[in-house]
Amino acid sequence: MTSMEKVNQFRDERNWRQFHNEKDLALSISLEAAELLELFQWKTSEEARKKPERLKEELADVLIYSYMLADNLDFDIDEIITEKLAKNALKYPISKSKSSKQKYNELNQ
Amino acid sequence: MTSMEKVNQFRDERNWRQFHNEKDLALSISLEAAELLELFQWKTSEEARKKPERLKEELADVLIYSYMLADNLDFDIDEIITEKLAKNALKYPISKSKSSKQKYNELNQ
Amino acid sequence: MTSMEKVNQFRDERNWRQFHNEKDLALSISLEAAELLELFQWKTSEEARKKPERLKEELADVLIYSYMLADNLDFDIDEIITEKLAKNALKYPISKSKSSKQKYNELNQ
Amino acid sequence: MTSMEKVNQFRDERNWRQFHNEKDLALSISLEAAELLELFQWKTSEEARKKPERLKEELADVLIYSYMLADNLDFDIDEIITEKLAKNALKYPISKSKSSKQKYNELNQ
Repeated sequence: MTSMEKVNQFRDERNWRQFHNEKDLALSISLEAAELLELFQWKTSEEARKKPERLKEELADVLIYSYMLADNLDFDIDEIITEKLAKNALKYPISKSKSSKQKYNELNQ
Repeated sequence: MTSMEKVNQFRDERNWRQFHNEKDLALSISLEAAELLELFQWKTSEEARKKPERLKEELADVLIYSYMLADNLDFDIDEIITEKLAKNALKYPISKSKSSKQKYNELNQ
Repeated sequence: MTSMEKVNQFRDERNWRQFHNEKDLALSISLEAAELLELFQWKTSEEARKKPERLKEELADVLIYSYMLADNLDFDIDEIITEKLAKNALKYPISKSKSSKQKYNELNQ
Repeated sequence: MTSMEKVNQFRDERNWRQFHNEKDLALSISLEAAELLELFQWKTSEEARKKPERLKEELADVLIYSYMLADNLDFDIDEIITEKLAKNALKYPISKSKSSKQKYNELNQ
């Protein structure tokens, strides 16, 4: 069973699809991203890495809500990632962006 | 090629792994989640659905940064989703949470 | 005593200024904004209004961290608000933006 | 004129109060906090401080939306800050939390 199918099964066993409007799903992705980010508050990356179980849980929550929103909108996860990477490749051509932190920062703004 | 392999290839062709500390990746997931949420600002879900291309792009960005953080931390995407769904199943047993918006809200708090 | 002075006193009594780098303060504002937003998850505005104490607490946390960041950066709260409203007035001239939801949405994008 | 009065005047001259439901205001605070945080993405605090004008603008946006939400809910800004600091003082007694980063981190979790 794919991860998407598992996420859908979890939702449908509870009959929760009826509550899943897209606005609250997008809001939930943002809240889970904040819970993930909280693990880094007042810490360096090295300090935060000491809690892998919490990191796994919060990152999984971001992914689960992202999959739920994708399902609501009939998006294929692999397809939208592939398409976005193609767009990013045009914005960040290898020749211009390779190995350069300065360019990297400027290009991200 | 899996989506994870495509994301890694994109990063490595630009030699960007050196800049990818986990704190800024978690921060980036949060920023992309906000850009996704912005598509729903002052709108209903129905109104926001009218821009599927923008929704695809911003949701893909959330996923791409999530995959990058997972790669940094040596997490397997499917594994952490499966594990988290198992934990959620304990928190939200089907018998208690099925079809009930009231319970659903309370359980989410 | 002004609110800013009270916030500074709270921080300085605990000798916490040394930990208050601007990046983690900005990150903290974002986390507190998410905790505030969580009070609206799966809810209408009307439903969320039923918990005024929680709304007060979370909104206050957003403000407290915002004041702390302003203090770090030597910004005067009233001055930056006045300046930003002046910039916004140029972006949203009354003649064009008055009473129109359609324009309001478009202008916000 | 107080900052709150200026914010209200800006809103009322455009007749925007009718659009200001609390859920979208809370969502907007979160989005502005993300725009502020974006100024720190892939940067140290020192690097980010080099753009004071952008920091002023984004921090002001967080404050302006926070004031708008407070006005909707009939909250007095200074009052909710004072009340929250009193609650925080109980959670973080000076004797236990002074000067200690370790305690500070633990207490924040």
